[in-house]
Amino acid sequence: MKAAVWYNRGDVRVVDVDEPEVKPFHVKIKIKWCGICGSDLHEYLGGPVSIPVDTPHPLTGAVAPVILGHELVGDVVEVGENVTKFKVGDRVVTEATVCCQECPACLVGDYNLCEKLCIHGVHGSGGGFAEYTVFHEKFTHKVPESLDYEQAVLTEPIAVGFHALSLGGFKPGAVAVVLGAGPIGLGVIESLKASGAKQIIAVVRKSVRQEYALRSGADVLLDPEEVDVAAEVKKLTQGRGADVAYETYGVDLGLRLGLDSIRVGGTLVILSLWENPSTLHMMDLVLTEKNIVGSIIYKGNDYETVVKMLDDGRIPAKGYVTKRIALEDIVSEGFETLAGPEKKGHVKIIVTPDRSLL
Amino acid sequence: MKAAVWYNRGDVRVVDVDEPEVKPFHVKIKIKWCGICGSDLHEYLGGPVSIPVDTPHPLTGAVAPVILGHELVGDVVEVGENVTKFKVGDRVVTEATVCCQECPACLVGDYNLCEKLCIHGVHGSGGGFAEYTVFHEKFTHKVPESLDYEQAVLTEPIAVGFHALSLGGFKPGAVAVVLGAGPIGLGVIESLKASGAKQIIAVVRKSVRQEYALRSGADVLLDPEEVDVAAEVKKLTQGRGADVAYETYGVDLGLRLGLDSIRVGGTLVILSLWENPSTLHMMDLVLTEKNIVGSIIYKGNDYETVVKMLDDGRIPAKGYVTKRIALEDIVSEGFETLAGPEKKGHVKIIVTPDRSLL
Repeated sequence: MKAAVWYNRGDVRVVDVDEPEVKPFHVKIKIKWCGICGSDLHEYLGGPVSIPVDTPHPLTGAVAPVILGHELVGDVVEVGENVTKFKVGDRVVTEATVCCQECPACLVGDYNLCEKLCIHGVHGSGGGFAEYTVFHEKFTHKVPESLDYEQAVLTEPIAVGFHALSLGGFKPGAVAVVLGAGPIGLGVIESLKASGAKQIIAVVRKSVRQEYALRSGADVLLDPEEVDVAAEVKKLTQGRGADVAYETYGVDLGLRLGLDSIRVGGTLVILSLWENPSTLHMMDLVLTEKNIVGSIIYKGNDYETVVKMLDDGRIPAKGYVTKRIALEDIVSEGFETLAGPEKKGHVKIIVTPDRSLL
Repeated sequence: MKAAVWYNRGDVRVVDVDEPEVKPFHVKIKIKWCGICGSDLHEYLGGPVSIPVDTPHPLTGAVAPVILGHELVGDVVEVGENVTKFKVGDRVVTEATVCCQECPACLVGDYNLCEKLCIHGVHGSGGGFAEYTVFHEKFTHKVPESLDYEQAVLTEPIAVGFHALSLGGFKPGAVAVVLGAGPIGLGVIESLKASGAKQIIAVVRKSVRQEYALRSGADVLLDPEEVDVAAEVKKLTQGRGADVAYETYGVDLGLRLGLDSIRVGGTLVILSLWENPSTLHMMDLVLTEKNIVGSIIYKGNDYETVVKMLDDGRIPAKGYVTKRIALEDIVSEGFETLAGPEKKGHVKIIVTPDRSLL
């Protein structure tokens, strides 16, 4: 089958690979769409970030080359032994996680924090930029009839945003700042809207993403190049500051704007991937009792909840997709588009191995 | 009356000042003892840290010189109009806080985070290194009969430690690491012991404080100069890491040891005062969902709870006091002792304006 394989930084090739074989407790999925994640782009432009190259991955034993892609939707075409949840023909989405199920984190359900965590499409267990993939039924979910493939393919990034809500101690009625409106920022905004936020303040530079932020449910838009974000947030909250901020920039500006925008005792949730260390004065936390917490992937009921919210319309997830491309064109039309001057016009590019869908 | 007054860095003098006059809702207290806090020492050695020198304090309007001292115990000698909780002769301790009672933080009870927060003995409202002080009855508490003055004078630093428990999401049964065993670290240890910690791991360099940490309730002692703290904590927790760590060093080593010692999803509470900014890679939080939160002073029921725990013996608070000195000797026998080669032999030095107590 055809698959997009990462060989090295700047070297992703669509090549022929063996079709994966179904295993007990696993389903084989014929892929319809798979979204390009920021982390895929990082691996292409600046990797290896997480891809194992010298040391085999502790769970899969793999090193590069590896198949990319973890935001996938498709149809079950074969079920392995002991599979109980699925039958051939089911439309499904998958979580990105393959975990060891035996480390201290897995044992308490924190499989997103597994010691040997494998991300599908990164660590050698297969991936979504391919014609087929095989995945454990435990982390596979049925797509409700109400959703088309193009909505369902957004489940994964929205679940990442949804998961961050609980990390920030979010409660209905809270005022939230969201820094950035890429797919993850939009996922946070949609999740906040669907979970009873009082006010959602999106901090987004001039780009098509401003419009997407509003469409996703932001109540107020602040451009960090035009206004003093923290001062504006204070004005919007009777001098108090936001209860929580969600950071998706991955640079110190986001850390600064986030900390300055939240109230005393508030929480800054970091969802982004960072290349460089930050400078932070602990007195900025001590004197204010502010708190900074990281958020990664999702766990527990997050995925099922997002599927349900997509199903009943609480999360609309319409209109994120800015480009649909064929698997063969993933480099030229996908990664290069997201790295080039056109990038400001894009939110989510989705990739299909099936040209008939284009 | 005599009082120890901060004029400038390295310039604290015991001088004659006007006796403070009682006001409505306030009590006048004849001071028995007042402890020297690390923050007093910071002001003496490296101040002004918090003492207002150019800009008047927003609540008191004061600038230096100011009377120092906020860990006080004494007897009520006069009550102001409208005072209902106290009568002349009551033995009392006071919180350190004088707040505006009208900012967003005060309105929700977070008076430790008051926009105009005044610390008694720092910001010009008077202080405990004096013969008398006047304080609002709302933040004054009766000393139970079971406690002598030398135990009661420890209420303040222990309350600082106790307050940090809730910030770290502490629950009975948790495993906690405490970095440092100065008065605040010991206050954390005693509060953890009194609140159902499963295991308390104190990280303390060779000094008299190791013995105090054990006496206060630490189950295990780790010397950061002798062992790999994070590795030892992992061993002690079946590979998991501590649920929470409390940092009282105020330097990057504490940040590092704290973060490395907690489990994924765990919390690092910072109680210390920092002179320099820190370097921190946000990926250390993102990939682990660890969280860092500041803790300052106390609020709500913290003080009353600590008084109650001291009263019924859940917090023994015996043996912290390593030196008792007269007010006149506060510089030579207090600050200079805590700054000099003898400092490793000390935990808490308490000061009295009444030589008959020595």
